[in-house]
Amino acid sequence: MSLTIVGTVAFDSVKTPYGEARKVIGGAATFAGWSASYLHSEVRLISIIGDDWPEEELKKMQARGIDTGGIEIVPGGKSFYWEGEYDKNMIDRTTLLTDLNVLDDFNPVLPSKYKNTEFLMLGNLTPEIQRTIIDQMEERPKLIVMDTMNFWIDIALPSLEDTIRRVDVLSINDEEARLLSGEYNLLRAADRILDYGLRYLIIKKGEHGALLFSKDQMFFAPALPLAEITDPTGAGDSFAGGLMGYLASQSEITFEHMKMALVHGAAMGSFCVEDFSLRKLQNLTREQIDTRVNDLIELARVEKL
Amino acid sequence: MSLTIVGTVAFDSVKTPYGEARKVIGGAATFAGWSASYLHSEVRLISIIGDDWPEEELKKMQARGIDTGGIEIVPGGKSFYWEGEYDKNMIDRTTLLTDLNVLDDFNPVLPSKYKNTEFLMLGNLTPEIQRTIIDQMEERPKLIVMDTMNFWIDIALPSLEDTIRRVDVLSINDEEARLLSGEYNLLRAADRILDYGLRYLIIKKGEHGALLFSKDQMFFAPALPLAEITDPTGAGDSFAGGLMGYLASQSEITFEHMKMALVHGAAMGSFCVEDFSLRKLQNLTREQIDTRVNDLIELARVEKL
Repeated sequence: MSLTIVGTVAFDSVKTPYGEARKVIGGAATFAGWSASYLHSEVRLISIIGDDWPEEELKKMQARGIDTGGIEIVPGGKSFYWEGEYDKNMIDRTTLLTDLNVLDDFNPVLPSKYKNTEFLMLGNLTPEIQRTIIDQMEERPKLIVMDTMNFWIDIALPSLEDTIRRVDVLSINDEEARLLSGEYNLLRAADRILDYGLRYLIIKKGEHGALLFSKDQMFFAPALPLAEITDPTGAGDSFAGGLMGYLASQSEITFEHMKMALVHGAAMGSFCVEDFSLRKLQNLTREQIDTRVNDLIELARVEKL
Repeated sequence: MSLTIVGTVAFDSVKTPYGEARKVIGGAATFAGWSASYLHSEVRLISIIGDDWPEEELKKMQARGIDTGGIEIVPGGKSFYWEGEYDKNMIDRTTLLTDLNVLDDFNPVLPSKYKNTEFLMLGNLTPEIQRTIIDQMEERPKLIVMDTMNFWIDIALPSLEDTIRRVDVLSINDEEARLLSGEYNLLRAADRILDYGLRYLIIKKGEHGALLFSKDQMFFAPALPLAEITDPTGAGDSFAGGLMGYLASQSEITFEHMKMALVHGAAMGSFCVEDFSLRKLQNLTREQIDTRVNDLIELARVEKL
């Protein structure tokens, strides 16, 4: 089944208390695409870049089987650029610079073969762009998952709500869930947000794991405690990629499948943070991933005695 | 097997964004004792109170089978009193007042029948008092678990270290683990702290659950997301009580038993926060507890598909 991921392909500069990486490969679709590619073979990306983005990186993706035909390359354009610095806790971060560059004119036109996709991941973009992607689909995808951020909740809530009403799964962090629902308590926040008509809601809590909600079920996927966290950038996108890659390889989507998808997401997120940029994500084996998925399953498993 | 719990029996005044309770029943040993009493029949308390502490509350404990013979009552004395206010997140709190009162002269002398105890829980007290309890034991208990706090790490580290070296399990929160070890990362913190010679280390992360470590194993017990959190006071002590009550009722202590003990601790902590003071903890059934333990086990359980 085909999985289409829409999001940024970009450059990042990241500073943490433990190191620094200047103008390295980043972007939500990049992290998500690489993560998904280990779990599913039919991954397509929709994004926009300038011709400053290294062709060699596009080739690496293609070599992994990632279809980059949906990445528009703007001649003479500059790719999206983000610069940030992390606090000692490796969670709080300060954005030092955001250069939208070519992303400012992003108006994705889907290649015709992308118009049939069973699984669609809408990365954090304007709610309008997210809807234009859905609008271009010939058939409604089997599962649409979307991400968003505080910014859109603050400045474009009605439009964001329009998009949320058209998807199956919303994947956001705890802060965003609180802001979107007006409820501090996450159970009550989840209840309200599911009322948009979502099938499932995922609330990510960073190093504290992620919660999965349906109207009558709840699941908690812990994050793996790691001895070395080098750079959290892209962890949420890698989580989304692992989640979608797992789901796209399944024949049906039940709550049990969603649970396992969260665990695969947590596994990919845990690899992502172990090094800057894609250094870890570009060098994994399926065996390493399966081992980590198993570690995560065992981490919180209790047998009745 | 006998379980002896040493800690405060006190009054609390608590203010949260959702309500307030003035001069209600509190204290680490009170919360731990009530929690343990649902899981084990032989619970004894060691503490000190003034005669201002309601006799009726002592009688309630006795009616539940809690042995209060180790609670010294100081005629004309005033019981330990703590007053605090919680932040909106129900985690961060400001201590407004701490009146040690009779606790200032606490020099516990164990009743002779307390000198043989298989399970000993040393609540947060001065490291010296914690050691005098161990010193008075005729036989070394089968398992000694201790709690402590930032304050003793800051002002009495060598003495605290002496106590830690004499116990089997240390149960502290993430902030305390970081302070004690000098390591921000919890895996590295755990590794250092286990080097004191502990058999197990528990690092509590409040609403984010608790981690259990031995030198070669790790387990994560999630906290149950709750729709209503009324008052977090006593949650950590209820956790300790649930943990100890479960362990004292087992015939051996393995890592698997410790895992299940953490889940019982999380269950008792989750009841505690649902109302002020002991309102919830004094009105539970074993069935409610078993149901919640089961909910916690299922919360993070994944079956391979």
